[in-house]
Amino acid sequence: MRGNSFGKAFTITTFGESHGKAIGVTIDGCPAGLTLDLNFIQSELDRRRPGQSKIVTQRKESDTVQILSGDFEGKTTGTPLMLLIWNADARSKDYSHIADRFRPSHADFTYHEKYGNRDYRGGGRSSARETAARVAAGAIAKLFLREKGIEINAYVSQVGAIKTEKSYPELDLADTEKTAVRCPDLPVAEQMIDHIKAVKKAGDTIGGVVAAVVTGCPVGLGEPAFDKLHADLAKAMLSINACKGFEYGSGFDGVTMRGSEHNDIFVKEGNEIKTKTNFSGGIQGGISNGMDIYFRCAFKPVATIIPAQDSVDVKGEKTEVVGKGRHDPCVVPRAVPIVEAMAALVLIDHYLRDLMVRREDRGERREERG
Amino acid sequence: MRGNSFGKAFTITTFGESHGKAIGVTIDGCPAGLTLDLNFIQSELDRRRPGQSKIVTQRKESDTVQILSGDFEGKTTGTPLMLLIWNADARSKDYSHIADRFRPSHADFTYHEKYGNRDYRGGGRSSARETAARVAAGAIAKLFLREKGIEINAYVSQVGAIKTEKSYPELDLADTEKTAVRCPDLPVAEQMIDHIKAVKKAGDTIGGVVAAVVTGCPVGLGEPAFDKLHADLAKAMLSINACKGFEYGSGFDGVTMRGSEHNDIFVKEGNEIKTKTNFSGGIQGGISNGMDIYFRCAFKPVATIIPAQDSVDVKGEKTEVVGKGRHDPCVVPRAVPIVEAMAALVLIDHYLRDLMVRREDRGERREERG
Amino acid sequence: MRGNSFGKAFTITTFGESHGKAIGVTIDGCPAGLTLDLNFIQSELDRRRPGQSKIVTQRKESDTVQILSGDFEGKTTGTPLMLLIWNADARSKDYSHIADRFRPSHADFTYHEKYGNRDYRGGGRSSARETAARVAAGAIAKLFLREKGIEINAYVSQVGAIKTEKSYPELDLADTEKTAVRCPDLPVAEQMIDHIKAVKKAGDTIGGVVAAVVTGCPVGLGEPAFDKLHADLAKAMLSINACKGFEYGSGFDGVTMRGSEHNDIFVKEGNEIKTKTNFSGGIQGGISNGMDIYFRCAFKPVATIIPAQDSVDVKGEKTEVVGKGRHDPCVVPRAVPIVEAMAALVLIDHYLRDLMVRREDRGERREERG
Amino acid sequence: MRGNSFGKAFTITTFGESHGKAIGVTIDGCPAGLTLDLNFIQSELDRRRPGQSKIVTQRKESDTVQILSGDFEGKTTGTPLMLLIWNADARSKDYSHIADRFRPSHADFTYHEKYGNRDYRGGGRSSARETAARVAAGAIAKLFLREKGIEINAYVSQVGAIKTEKSYPELDLADTEKTAVRCPDLPVAEQMIDHIKAVKKAGDTIGGVVAAVVTGCPVGLGEPAFDKLHADLAKAMLSINACKGFEYGSGFDGVTMRGSEHNDIFVKEGNEIKTKTNFSGGIQGGISNGMDIYFRCAFKPVATIIPAQDSVDVKGEKTEVVGKGRHDPCVVPRAVPIVEAMAALVLIDHYLRDLMVRREDRGERREERG
Repeated sequence: MRGNSFGKAFTITTFGESHGKAIGVTIDGCPAGLTLDLNFIQSELDRRRPGQSKIVTQRKESDTVQILSGDFEGKTTGTPLMLLIWNADARSKDYSHIADRFRPSHADFTYHEKYGNRDYRGGGRSSARETAARVAAGAIAKLFLREKGIEINAYVSQVGAIKTEKSYPELDLADTEKTAVRCPDLPVAEQMIDHIKAVKKAGDTIGGVVAAVVTGCPVGLGEPAFDKLHADLAKAMLSINACKGFEYGSGFDGVTMRGSEHNDIFVKEGNEIKTKTNFSGGIQGGISNGMDIYFRCAFKPVATIIPAQDSVDVKGEKTEVVGKGRHDPCVVPRAVPIVEAMAALVLIDHYLRDLMVRREDRGERREERG
Repeated sequence: MRGNSFGKAFTITTFGESHGKAIGVTIDGCPAGLTLDLNFIQSELDRRRPGQSKIVTQRKESDTVQILSGDFEGKTTGTPLMLLIWNADARSKDYSHIADRFRPSHADFTYHEKYGNRDYRGGGRSSARETAARVAAGAIAKLFLREKGIEINAYVSQVGAIKTEKSYPELDLADTEKTAVRCPDLPVAEQMIDHIKAVKKAGDTIGGVVAAVVTGCPVGLGEPAFDKLHADLAKAMLSINACKGFEYGSGFDGVTMRGSEHNDIFVKEGNEIKTKTNFSGGIQGGISNGMDIYFRCAFKPVATIIPAQDSVDVKGEKTEVVGKGRHDPCVVPRAVPIVEAMAALVLIDHYLRDLMVRREDRGERREERG
Repeated sequence: MRGNSFGKAFTITTFGESHGKAIGVTIDGCPAGLTLDLNFIQSELDRRRPGQSKIVTQRKESDTVQILSGDFEGKTTGTPLMLLIWNADARSKDYSHIADRFRPSHADFTYHEKYGNRDYRGGGRSSARETAARVAAGAIAKLFLREKGIEINAYVSQVGAIKTEKSYPELDLADTEKTAVRCPDLPVAEQMIDHIKAVKKAGDTIGGVVAAVVTGCPVGLGEPAFDKLHADLAKAMLSINACKGFEYGSGFDGVTMRGSEHNDIFVKEGNEIKTKTNFSGGIQGGISNGMDIYFRCAFKPVATIIPAQDSVDVKGEKTEVVGKGRHDPCVVPRAVPIVEAMAALVLIDHYLRDLMVRREDRGERREERG
Repeated sequence: MRGNSFGKAFTITTFGESHGKAIGVTIDGCPAGLTLDLNFIQSELDRRRPGQSKIVTQRKESDTVQILSGDFEGKTTGTPLMLLIWNADARSKDYSHIADRFRPSHADFTYHEKYGNRDYRGGGRSSARETAARVAAGAIAKLFLREKGIEINAYVSQVGAIKTEKSYPELDLADTEKTAVRCPDLPVAEQMIDHIKAVKKAGDTIGGVVAAVVTGCPVGLGEPAFDKLHADLAKAMLSINACKGFEYGSGFDGVTMRGSEHNDIFVKEGNEIKTKTNFSGGIQGGISNGMDIYFRCAFKPVATIIPAQDSVDVKGEKTEVVGKGRHDPCVVPRAVPIVEAMAALVLIDHYLRDLMVRREDRGERREERG
């Protein structure tokens, strides 16, 4: 009921504060017999890790993950997996100056009002550090999905006003990891990096957009009426720190289209049914239709900036806040693996839930078309 | 697990198909002692009702709602409320032509593949008719929220390329119901209506945007990390038929802003803490901060159009689909009460969940600032 | 959160009061393609129906059930099933004398205190009439389980101090329905009936025990650590009105046994692994082991009796309560189909949940032993 | 969905295997501002700890608990609490002999069949070692409940055929901790200890009963229809390893009583309403009525015994199992704190859930009676 769990079939519960002893995640619902590729899990965390490049926060954390339960001889056993990451570089003193005051557009005020007793160090629980636990869980989800042929790739499509005009499959998503900003349109990536550096130099921050594509998703994932696949994706994305918007398929651009343009015409390819266009974004009536799923997430500029800002303290008295601490000038490069992780968590959840629907008929229906 | 329930504290479960016997909703978690204003509940359904104007579907349904349980002497008892709406004008024959074929961009194909046994009449369960049940439940949520001073107002801000440049509070939301299209910018509303009529005449459909404002929301609603207030709003909105995108506060526009512009500075007003600007959209760290909550939802053009379209049948053979049935040329006028209902369901859910947090301290904190 | 739903995969939500307009149940999670045998569903309700014999309450209710959604051409579609039963013989005037006072050992006082606004007529929501909805949902679960070879049979094993010394398979469970008391030990059944008649004549009531046996349950149902199969059965049974105790396998008698006596030795039969004894009651570590599951439920005497009893009114003033209304002298004959229904709901829930575990391996393991 | 979580408002998720790296629990839903008395939490674990006396298993574990998140300056913050206990004395070699065979009446066979990949060491996840995590979480629940005046006391009432004929309040529950067997009837406790020693000497095991009393519970906890307070207690208790039965109030003995004997007559005491007798066990209609709540739990003899037993291996071939490992000759002395912990988890969950019901009226109702 409190909100630290996600997923109904593959259920994760994250814990930990930015400057507490550790952060981590418990996963209940991972099928037994899955090979746990620790190198892969760690490599996913490394993609989210602070200090990985010059355009991200310089906090030093190796984010080394340990699996404390649920594994036996390298495979999952069907019992809860517990993944733990110790906090190393928790310079709590960086934050003593904000113990009694509220940083603008942070969660300081709302946590103070809601809970009364607040760990103010680095934002405590409201810090994006919590997302490391999501990436760890998402990595395990990815290992499972990969066995089923489902791949998820996110990338930065916009930083401030700089954006790529290309989209997948025109973009080669293998290029995403080639630059620190994770935009696969390499000339645009360079402009983005320069822009982030300039913003950082000014002590300021800037927003951006992360786009994502899911390939290989079978027909049938998603549960109407409320747990539509895209509704769960929307919630997953909006639950990421600093995310302000979500759209899938034609999204906000679809608003100006007519039905006659927007409708995706069905065609038969082999014994599969496909659509000629894909404004539906791979989901119809809340259920995947076998086409690529694609969506976009808007991220606001990070709230921590260097220049002094007016604010109030816990008693409401006027005060000033100056940005110390270490922080990201732009959140989107590190948001890429988080978006992928959350998408993976939604997909594995729906994959498992769909197993409870009578599936034997599906093969028959497909064969009839063969 | 199947997805027909929404809410953890105020939990609704909807049922019913477009051309089945009835649709309705069971509500578990409504507090006892709430006065049930039946006229208000019915009036909300009337706002969503088909046939209410010339720019919506002409299906004839009075959508008269009955309360079958959970009430005693005009008030709720704390036991489940069951609200039932009989289907009246279910011209199933209108749909026999699509029994064995898939309408483009409808849920026909995905339901057929997922479930095997599909009620094709009017889209069955995937029909937007299901949202009448949401509006009924949302009306009860509104009655509760109103007692707490929380009001929700949605309106049409865009139809195709025609949009209002104004926003609340510049717009007088009392004007929303003055036109059939539910845009409170009355000159723009006229253009929208003309546009919808033209689109309808062409047998085509068009998309649009619904904007919403929540006023009077207290500080403290929302549950991090996953059940952030805006994450639940996003899921709620994306679960509405034809919704393709959601943004709150600065939304996608916030992407191009700098932190120094986007940050909302705290100020004291009386013994309340407010913000000078509200790019946060009334929510910080997933928790309401007492400012207005506002968000926008993108709706695609309705998939049912009159001209013949290519498609395939259940065996994958090429065929053609012609639009019969009755349908909306543009979904947004009728989506307004649905958006409000879903927002009300999210807010009451979080209002009740927040009651489990130690609240006695809050008053004390507020008094300290007095 | 309020407690009117049961089951995680096959989720039912019941609604309705004893003397309200209707009672019923919504089922979310029933697999598609299940043939709905309406005669069977009604026959299950008839087994629970009031007025069915001289030893049960004489309230007149046909308990005719209607399916309002989720079915198409006689089969389930995977969407929510809604089953409705109208209340017919609701003689509310029978209850006006208790509007302001609390009947001993009823829920009048606790509902009054918890909710404030209470439908006192016939106990309102706390009436066992609510269990008709469970029987309707359980009948659908039974139809599904029957396809899988799983059968559930409950019977009365004790009324007051009169009990059968026999148990299944010594008892022929086909004899259960031969008498009004539903004890398959026919000579004992006659004594039970006479005893109930004598108790009724005295205006009094008496307790009893319902025993149940599940045959054909496959290995693997149940989810440790908390959702052990027997833990969910215990909750299901204790949630039935008047149930005071639950035991499975050796139960309370197992307390005095030694491990060397109580352990069930494994043996191979064909390619199945069985146990020589079955003190485990078909469940080990919370998971079914393929043997018969058996358990027993204690029911207290019904609280409504004819003689005047001291009590207090809503203001705490001393008063008297006299039994009017119609009521059962002994609850166990009508509890039999309710116990079966609740067991069926637990089993289908765990059957569906188990589908999310990697099952392909199981066949292989079994074949290895072949 | 997998079953490793318990509670809807105060939700715990346990993880860990008997011989894995660690065990622990995440708690989501603990209210903010609760003082964490670490000495108390550890003392509860010490009551469950192996090696605490000569009549329990001699495995050496200090069971030292660490809190890794959710606390700040000694108090809870409303964010998830993570409690970790490292496994120390994990002599896995003790178990290599059972890697490929099934111990009678253990969970070896069912886990093997359900999951395929099984951590056989010490029973893995099915080991009662998991209950240490429950005791840790339960200790925090007790700290909260104590602030509200709610106390839970369990004790051993029977070992094999040796039982106390006394019950609370005749028994002084302060005597429970005076003996290793935790029976407050001290002369009977001595007999129990002698009996357990004799059974142990024979390499055998014996069952027992744990009784529990909850005092100070306010009126109003419990959520009909399915989440009745006693139904949730039943599930909680049956989820404990080796528990085979549960009864509350009059329990199985109530079966032979008449309504006229069994009904609890209401009386006014001050401005409270009480009952003269308490066969209801403090719960009516699933809701606490303010009287003491009492219940009893049956535990079977531990399955691990020293003498050789026939069994089968994973291929179904006949084999033999000899008891090595360390184990309890009788589970009930160590089950006492586990029963208390599970009861505390049920009560805090319902305490928090009840906060969502309109409570302001209650005080008024009580005052009216003043």
